[in-house]
Order: sequence, then C-alpha cells, then structure tokens
Amino acid sequence: MIVCVCVCVCVCVCVQGPALEKAVSAFRCVCGEDGVSLGEAVRQQHGRDESVHRCCPPDVVVFPRCVEEVSALAKICHRYDLPIIPFGTGTGLEGGVSALNGGVCFSLRNMDQVLDLHQEDFDVTVEPGVTRKALNAHLRHTGLWFPVDPGADASLCGMAATSASGTNAVRYGTMRENVLNLEVVLADGTVVHTAGKGRRPRKTSAGYNLTNLFVGSEGTLGIITKTTLRLYGIPEATVSAVCSFPSVQAAVDSTVQVLQAGVPIARIEFLDDVMIDACNRYNSLSYPVTPTLFLEFHGTESSLDEQISTTEEISGANGGSDFQWARDAETRERLWKARHDAWYAALALRPGCPLVGHVGDGNFHCLTVLDPSDSDEVQRVHLFTERLARRALAMDGTCTGEHGVGLGKRALLCEEMGPMTMEVMRSLKHTLDPKNLMNPGKIL
Amino acid sequence: MIVCVCVCVCVCVCVQGPALEKAVSAFRCVCGEDGVSLGEAVRQQHGRDESVHRCCPPDVVVFPRCVEEVSALAKICHRYDLPIIPFGTGTGLEGGVSALNGGVCFSLRNMDQVLDLHQEDFDVTVEPGVTRKALNAHLRHTGLWFPVDPGADASLCGMAATSASGTNAVRYGTMRENVLNLEVVLADGTVVHTAGKGRRPRKTSAGYNLTNLFVGSEGTLGIITKTTLRLYGIPEATVSAVCSFPSVQAAVDSTVQVLQAGVPIARIEFLDDVMIDACNRYNSLSYPVTPTLFLEFHGTESSLDEQISTTEEISGANGGSDFQWARDAETRERLWKARHDAWYAALALRPGCPLVGHVGDGNFHCLTVLDPSDSDEVQRVHLFTERLARRALAMDGTCTGEHGVGLGKRALLCEEMGPMTMEVMRSLKHTLDPKNLMNPGKIL
Ligand SMILES: Cc1cc2nc3c(=O)[nH]c(=O)nc-3n(C[C@H](O)[C@H](O)[C@H](O)COP(=O)(O)OP(=O)(O)OC[C@H]3O[C@@H](n4cnc5c(N)ncnc54)[C@H](O)[C@@H]3O)c2cc1C
Ligand SMILES: Cc1cc2nc3c(=O)[nH]c(=O)nc-3n(C[C@H](O)[C@H](O)[C@H](O)COP(=O)(O)OP(=O)(O)OC[C@H]3O[C@@H](n4cnc5c(N)ncnc54)[C@H](O)[C@@H]3O)c2cc1C
Repeated sequence: MIVCVCVCVCVCVCVQGPALEKAVSAFRCVCGEDGVSLGEAVRQQHGRDESVHRCCPPDVVVFPRCVEEVSALAKICHRYDLPIIPFGTGTGLEGGVSALNGGVCFSLRNMDQVLDLHQEDFDVTVEPGVTRKALNAHLRHTGLWFPVDPGADASLCGMAATSASGTNAVRYGTMRENVLNLEVVLADGTVVHTAGKGRRPRKTSAGYNLTNLFVGSEGTLGIITKTTLRLYGIPEATVSAVCSFPSVQAAVDSTVQVLQAGVPIARIEFLDDVMIDACNRYNSLSYPVTPTLFLEFHGTESSLDEQISTTEEISGANGGSDFQWARDAETRERLWKARHDAWYAALALRPGCPLVGHVGDGNFHCLTVLDPSDSDEVQRVHLFTERLARRALAMDGTCTGEHGVGLGKRALLCEEMGPMTMEVMRSLKHTLDPKNLMNPGKIL
Repeated sequence: MIVCVCVCVCVCVCVQGPALEKAVSAFRCVCGEDGVSLGEAVRQQHGRDESVHRCCPPDVVVFPRCVEEVSALAKICHRYDLPIIPFGTGTGLEGGVSALNGGVCFSLRNMDQVLDLHQEDFDVTVEPGVTRKALNAHLRHTGLWFPVDPGADASLCGMAATSASGTNAVRYGTMRENVLNLEVVLADGTVVHTAGKGRRPRKTSAGYNLTNLFVGSEGTLGIITKTTLRLYGIPEATVSAVCSFPSVQAAVDSTVQVLQAGVPIARIEFLDDVMIDACNRYNSLSYPVTPTLFLEFHGTESSLDEQISTTEEISGANGGSDFQWARDAETRERLWKARHDAWYAALALRPGCPLVGHVGDGNFHCLTVLDPSDSDEVQRVHLFTERLARRALAMDGTCTGEHGVGLGKRALLCEEMGPMTMEVMRSLKHTLDPKNLMNPGKIL
C-alpha cells in the first residue's frame, strides 16, 4: 500500500485485566450493551485516521448518546485510570486517534443533533457527531452557511479539536476565529462551558479565553461535546477560476499581489506541476502541466466583476495564462474537481513529491508518496520531511499550519516553541489532566 | 467631579517595610536611579486609569528598558513576594492598573521601539511602549496600517492585555484575531514566546494556543514585552456617513440587514438620542436629536459605490434620513468628531444615561454619569448597571464585550461563566502564577 507523510514509529501498549473488565461493565450500565464494543473490527477501525501512522486500536469503543453519558463514562475511566481517546470521523492526518496506550475510544457519532440555530444572530450549536456537510445541508434553506472546509467531511467538533482550516480560511478564518463557545467534558468528568453555559457572544473580553485553549487541543485536554459556531450569509454569486503560470515564483507573486490589492478572495490554492499532472491522470483531465492557481471569488455580481478583473490583470502581468472561468455550480464543481481530489490523486502517484498549498495563508502541503514496508525509503522520507519543516521554522514559520501535532510533529513542536514555551504547555496539560488520561502521547 | 461607570469599592493595602526596601535597592541595580520612582505624584499617576475606580497607588514604579530588565525585576518581586502590576498607557476602563495590595508597578513606556516590520508578510513586532497611533505614524509610508481602534491612544501591548477592539472590529476583528505572537515575562521572571521565539505564522495549529490565553489576561498571567501584529493594506478609498433614524429599533434593524446583505462595512456605530444631544452640545454640532448611525466604508472606488447604495437603500426602507456623506479625510474627520468625542461628551452630561454602541458586533456601552461623592447615587447606579449586565446575560450575551473584567466585573464574570468554568480559570492562574503576584485581585 502507498500512503502519504508524515512518518513516525509508535508502540502500542494495551491496558488489560480486571480494571478494564470492571470498567466495561460500568460502561454498559451507562450506555447499554449497544453502546460498548470490544469487537476487533470496531477497535481497528477506531485506532487509525487517514494518515500513515499505524493503527493502535483502543481496548474498547464506547458510543455515548448525550453529554451526561460522556461525563459518566469519563468518571469511570478516571476511576480506573484508563486513557480516553475522543473520536470524531477519523479524517485526521496526524495519528490523533491512535490509542498508543490502549484505553477507551469515545466515538461521538451518535450525538448528531443540530441544536439552537439563531438565524438573525448568525450562529448555531452542534453536537460532535454533526459533520460540516451535514450542517450545511441542514442550513440549506436559511441563506446561511459554515465556510470552514478542510476538504474531508469531518465532524465540526473534531475540526475544533484540530483547529482545522482549509481552502476558505484566507477569507473566513479558521476554527479559531469561528468557534464562539464549547461544551467540554474534562478528564474527571466535569462539564465546563468555555464561554459560560449557553452563551454565544460575537465578541467578548470576559476572562481567560478558554475557548481557544480547547480549540486545537486535539483531545488532550477534554472531550468536546458541543460547539457553537459563527455562520455567514451565502454569497450572492460565486465564480471559480483556474490559471496556469510559467513558474512557482510567478504563481506565488500573483498571490501576494492579489492579497496586497485587497481583493477579498475566498480561495486561492496552489498546485505544482507534479500535483497537476497527478490530478490530470487521476481524473482524466488535461490542465497544462505547470504551476497552477485554483481561485474562487464570493460577492455581489458587480463586486465579482471588479475582483476578477483585478486578479486577471495581476496574473497576466506575472505570465499567467489559460484562464478558465466558471459561474454556475456544475461547471465550478468540474473546474475544482482536480483540486478537491488532490489528496487521492497524490496517493495514486509514485514516485513523486507534489506540492499543494492554501497559498493565501502561506500554507503548503508537500505530499510524499512512499511504501511503508520499505524501511530505507521510510527513513529517507522522514529525513526529507524534517528538513522541510526546519526550513519553514528557519523562515519564522510553523511546522504545522493545519492538521495539528498529533504523533508526527511532536519533536518539531519542541524545536518550534523552545523549552520554556513547551514547559508552559506541559503545565497547562498537567493542571487540566493531572493523570494524563486525555489522549496521552499526543502533542506533548 | 463627575465620572463614568462602573462603580466598585476597593481597599488598598500597602506592602511596606524591609522587604520593600531591599527590593528597591535591587531594582536600582537593574535599571538605575532614574528607572525607579517612589515619588508620591508618580505613584498616584500609576494607580488609576480613566475609569471611576479610585486610585490605589503602587509602592514603587519601575521603568525597565528591555525584556532582560523586566525579567530581572520580576525575579526580585518573586523573591520578595511583591505584587507586579503592568502599566501601559493607563487608558483602561475597569481599574486594571489599580494596586489593590500595593506592590510594584511596571511602567513599560521606555520600551518604545517598533521592531521587525515585514511589509510583504503584513506583520510587525512592537515593544509595549508603542501606542496604536505611534505605530500607524511609523507605517505611514508603507501603505499598511493596524486597524484595531479602541478610541484612546492605548499601548498595543495594553490592548493585547485587555483584548481591545473598538470601532473597526466588525471588519478587521479584535486583538484576538490580530496578535500573532507575544513575548511574555511570567511572575517568576521566565521569558516565554507564546508561538515560539521570532515566529509569525499567519496560521498555525502547533500545540495549545498560548497567544490567545495571554491576550485578554489583563496583566494577571504575565507581563507582555513584545507583540507581533497582523497588518492590513490601507484601503484605496474611504467614505464616512451619518444617518438619523426614527427609533432605536429602526437603527438596529438597519444594522442587522446591512450585515446580512454582506456589506463589508468597516465601522457601524450607534448613538442614542441622549448621546447625540450630548455630542451636539460638547462640540457645538447640530445633528438631529434622534437615534443615529455613524458609518464608514473601506474599499476600491467602485466597490464603495455598491456598498453605499445598498446601505442607503436598507436605511431608507427603515426610515433613515438626513444622510450625510464625506469622502476626503478632513470632512470625514469632521463628520465623525461627534462619535470620537462621545466619552468626553458623556462626562459633561448630567443627569442622563446615553447609549453608544459598536452595533455591528452587538456591543453597547451605557454611560451613566454620576457624582462619586453622593453615596446614594453611587448605589443606585451600581444596581442599575448590574441589572443591565444581567439583561445581557439573560440574552446569552456577555457582561463585557470589551474593556475586560478588571475590578468592576468580577462578580458578573462568575455569573456569566458558572462555577466550573471559573474553577478552570482559577486553576490556570494558579499554574502560571502560584504566588498570585501578577496583578492580584483582577479578573478573579
Ligand atoms: C483528504 C483530506 C484533506 C484534508 N485537508 C485538510 C485541510 O485542508 N485543512 C485542515 O485543517 N485539515 C485537513 N484535513 C484533516 C482533517 O479533516 C481534520 O484534522 C479534521 O478536523 C479532523 O476531524 P475528525 O472529526 O475527523 O477528527 P478525528 O480524525 O476523529 O480526530 C482528530 C483529533 O481530534 C480529536 N477529536 C476528535 N473529535 C473530538 C472531540 N469531539 N473532542 C475532543 N477531541 C476530539 C481526536 O482525539 C484526534 O486527536 C484533511 C483530511 C483529509 C482526509
Ligand atoms: C475614551 C476611551 C474609549 C475607549 N474605547 C474603547 C473601545 O471602544 N474598545 C476597547 O476595547 N477599549 C476601549 N477603551 C479602553 C482602553 O483603551 C483599553 O482598555 C486599552 O486597551 C488599555 O491599554 P493601556 O495601554 O492604556 O493599558 P492600561 O490601562 O495601562 O492597562 C490596562 C490593563 O492591562 C494590563 N496591561 C497593560 N499593559 C500590559 C502589558 N504590557 N503586559 C501585561 N499587562 C498589561 C494592566 O495591568 C491593566 O490590567 C477606551 C478607553 C477610553 C479612555
């Protein structure tokens, strides 16, 4: 099998024996026979995400139906010192759901209600089983939408947990800017509301910003059981475009100039020649095999005309050519298909190392395709990805613009942050989870 | 003297005796004779901000010149158990700089350098003595600006400390969305960089979001000695406007509809009839005495035409009248003067209770003008403001959309957050500042 970076070795240690048995019977009292699974297939399915990290299955998977059950289950884990690993939809890319020390996977898929939609206030509260696409389907007739889009149809609470962003972030921000409140169950079963119960202030300066401490905490500080999100009006019109460039530099210069010109572009995605080639092959397309920008504009009809003409002018001046435009939904979807399938196109590519980037945020993905059974190749790719991340750090950047730290980026995180900052992170983790039960071995 | 809400009683306890004396000589070794002041006038000046809270002067004021001095001074305070109160420019409105238990005020005005401007990356790093206006003056010839504008010419690190926002937040966000990194000296003198030293990622998912834990911490978790900020391109054109409405409801409805229509409005400020009357008197103006919106639009010439016509249409449909428009800087300044001077106009008003609001964020200020020597009046105003804040809470809102908690909002914060969330905040405070030396008695 061929998979994508990053690579990391981990050892699975399973919790077993009488403590687990007692805990399992207690779990059954909380969520019934159906709500607890020890089956091999279910455990395997919950021990890995979509990344290269190998599967570390949990000892047991529980399926709570409400926050009270989550809290009761957490209390049992706390009593028996069992690790707790929250599971959204398993689309993560850093091995976040891997049960390194065994323990209890909390699958939250049965908590799938859209709650408290406030149309005039542009906000909604959802349970952790609700995915991004399910929410937008629910909102279809309201004129509102939730724009953060990591590609995968991830759960919104999982997206909060990984501080997800994706293609629309350049215009609408990431989860950090769009979560107004979280309900969280801590390691000992305590339920807290980061901005106070039921609150949904668009703006607040009330005390410490707990919401953004839990956003991006990757299940290591608590289980998110509700998230209140900011919504947006669906734009009057949308235009998509694709444009080819003579060089990477030309595409990047165009991006910087488009942003400097104040064009409120909704998406601006970069694919290098290797990536576009892979996309052409994967989807039988025929884009010129050269660095390419995929663009999307949101606004009123007349503001779009202006955005487009400015962008066309800037791109042209940088040697951009073969512009293709699409206004109706179907053509737009066809035009962007190459970009949407980039991950899977890359998986089909070997050898090769394509680049795809949310270039408006200065954020690139370098997808290295490798054979994990070839230990020599694994080692070479590992060294390469470390060198790449260090280059980002040398440019004042970050080793993880999105996806989080999980297993794969722990060593690089220490380099990025330095020992003092890591010490502060460790002390916060220890304060909120003194027994280190919440998703142990991740981030820190 | 007549001042504005909120009201709160505090007792000042001064630290004295041999510990203080020893500390003061140690301070002098760190920052010289000139860098340490015990003078009555200097202490009084550093014991209060622009709010009603009475002055609690610190025992001594220190004026460090660099982060190394801040760290060395903090270590001395830590050794002698002396409270540390960071002081920016003293424009706060919640009594944040009041030295309730005496201690050492760290005035940061001598650290006033603009560092590391990266024009292509739209970011800059500043020391804590740099104010918002000083930064924008520094940026004058770059085509860039920093938009967060709380009215007062506050220090940018003080603005980070209070999570400031103000008139532009509806378009550009608050300090939460615009701080990329902070250098912070903790209570024991440790220096940490919340996003890693020298980093300035536009987007990151690297570990816990420490930056936003310190943004809004009001000097209770550490002393901010550097902030890295996101900058914006100066808009091609700006248009200001004022419009009168028959009722508060009509003005609010217009605001909601303008936002729903997706107009990227830069400022939308509400003044009620009492406030506009006070402004007319204070500045000898003649605006109709009725609920009024002050508006500002940023964009390209042609996008402004569209924004303006949409807004005019919506306002007209809600009974808006007496539209005034201004394009050139001078006329715009004249038009907005009433709004800019609202605080001081309110101070001149008595009796009365005007409303002014950053209505695009759902955020209102109710300014109650009172005589603090009249204890009966103080009590009545206190009860009134509590009732007002509780009404905001009953509507799922917050007791402090901006300005922070400081002294005045501590009890309300507990109501807003609930006991569990407060417990989490307290435990974080205890972790980072176990001796409770950082600005004690604020927020918690
Ligand atoms: C093809 C593809 C493209 C992608 N592109 C992007 C992209 O552009 N940008 C981007 O940001 N991401 C991207 N991702 C990554 C992925 O979609 C995100 O990481 C997603 O946010 C994870 O959500 P999930 O529900 O699947 O979480 P999971 O994978 O189930 O879990 C991820 C982590 O979050 C924790 N977690 C999950 N739910 C909760 C909860 N309720 N409470 C506490 N912790 C929880 C888990 O313990 C784990 O550590 C991509 C993924 C794929 C497969
Ligand atoms: C007329 C007027 C209008 C205003 N309008 C608004 C508004 O619309 N929106 C808004 O948000 N605010 C507004 N404010 C409040 C005020 O401007 C802000 O609170 C400001 O951010 C405080 O900055 P400062 O440097 O003056 O801080 P100070 O007043 O000196 O201190 C405020 C708090 O921050 C802490 N602090 C200061 N500097 C540091 C540092 N370097 N490190 C750690 N802690 C520090 C202090 O200990 C204190 O707790 C207004 C104030 C006035 C006078």
